Amino acid sequence: MKTASNGKVYLVGAGPGDPELLTVKAHALIRTASVILRDDLVPEAILSLASSQAVIVNVGKRCGTKNITQAEINRLMVASARRGLSVVRLKSGDPGIFGRLAEERDALEAAGVQYEIVPGVTAGLAAAASLGVSLTDRRTSSRIVLITAHRAHENEHDAPIDWRTLATNNSILVIYMPGHNFASLEKELRDAGLPADTPAAIVSRASTPDQREFHTTLGNLTNAPRLDAPNILLIGQSLDHAGARQQTDPVSLTWDSLLEAVDVSISAANSNDNSERRINS
Amino acid sequence: MKTASNGKVYLVGAGPGDPELLTVKAHALIRTASVILRDDLVPEAILSLASSQAVIVNVGKRCGTKNITQAEINRLMVASARRGLSVVRLKSGDPGIFGRLAEERDALEAAGVQYEIVPGVTAGLAAAASLGVSLTDRRTSSRIVLITAHRAHENEHDAPIDWRTLATNNSILVIYMPGHNFASLEKELRDAGLPADTPAAIVSRASTPDQREFHTTLGNLTNAPRLDAPNILLIGQSLDHAGARQQTDPVSLTWDSLLEAVDVSISAANSNDNSERRINS
Repeated sequence: MKTASNGKVYLVGAGPGDPELLTVKAHALIRTASVILRDDLVPEAILSLASSQAVIVNVGKRCGTKNITQAEINRLMVASARRGLSVVRLKSGDPGIFGRLAEERDALEAAGVQYEIVPGVTAGLAAAASLGVSLTDRRTSSRIVLITAHRAHENEHDAPIDWRTLATNNSILVIYMPGHNFASLEKELRDAGLPADTPAAIVSRASTPDQREFHTTLGNLTNAPRLDAPNILLIGQSLDHAGARQQTDPVSLTWDSLLEAVDVSISAANSNDNSERRINS
Repeated sequence: MKTASNGKVYLVGAGPGDPELLTVKAHALIRTASVILRDDLVPEAILSLASSQAVIVNVGKRCGTKNITQAEINRLMVASARRGLSVVRLKSGDPGIFGRLAEERDALEAAGVQYEIVPGVTAGLAAAASLGVSLTDRRTSSRIVLITAHRAHENEHDAPIDWRTLATNNSILVIYMPGHNFASLEKELRDAGLPADTPAAIVSRASTPDQREFHTTLGNLTNAPRLDAPNILLIGQSLDHAGARQQTDPVSLTWDSLLEAVDVSISAANSNDNSERRINS
């Protein structure tokens, strides 16, 4: 993670917002970067990790008073790296998911600037974790579809989303930037065959102190309150984890008898390649 | 992140393998846990972060000499927490993605044990990042499908995967545990309408020193070598990032003129709410 003498751009995922959900690598890069080009959604709690010497530029599309273009962001990255600086291009969540990473990567490659992509915890996964939801579940969900309902972020050449191809009983839909117009989404998903009682949840500002949640069903989605952006909308059977809850046997075994039950023991561990404290079942 | 006096189970994503891609939170929990129940795929470089006092139990399904059951894993978690211990249930990648999280969460809830899910960087995102691939791209890819081709991990009640509903030109498929039998996958995806020249890549042991990659196309997938597990198979147009590369203007501006170009300056920053070193566009 040393700064190359001729500069380097790190395209870094800042995670969903909680500084503790930064990767160790992102944390170190933010602390040592000379230049941080950051999106709007990266919270102060993360920016405050930066060195007091760092130049931090908000190149976000939302709050900027000036309408900075992608080409200008690209030039800032390239020029900073060519000055020999360590540049962190800080994107919320994972940089490869709805983050316009491809355009910035292409600009860096075209300019011959060294770069590295540092993956992060994407907001959809953090939203699910905060709800106690497993995105896959052998009983209900075997596939995950990450998608945005925000048309401005759609490929210009896209046909309208054919939800029938995505919304099935054993999928979970993780919808980024869902907006607030749930009427058409509800209609399209119901037309696509999803039952009205399919569980749904909106998670606002996942993993931050401001996190808010609203639990509903597909059929009642239009009654959802407007929560602060960024939001993640989750739709799928595996959200209904209380309903799927299994009865388990009462647990009354002692620690020792448990170790016996799984047929492991310290003495067995001593005899294998791992250190003494390791217990391999 | 303090240990509750009556014990707590943290269901923690260990990330793809590189210890630097642990979250800050996972890193701290691993260092301080009294008990770590870990999957096979969590590498030594991460386990070595644990306290010398910690009891580390390999409850993985693959390498265990004993065929530990899910019920036994559940009992170990519950009993350890009831002894007042801080328990880390350490799963590779993100715990909510093909990690049997739901069953363990349900067992903890049924037993009334406090738990918390700590999301992680899932292997598919790390694989893409290591290839320089953006999973979404406004030009080629607006949705991501995470799926496993490993039938043992499918919902028992699943119909066979209908790839036509998932494989579209503007999706990227991120296939976990793809196995080595690519002949049927290739046939199914081509039957579903994906062109033979759709770019594909297999990434073995993403983010670790052992990472290996194989770049190919859907039509040549059957010629892929057998790489060491765990593998991620990526299929989609956005893999062809060299082909999609855009020409950008030559960059010859100086740093000062760049700042001018985006209409930001230190003096402007001084006059707003942010600290002096912040430059808001």
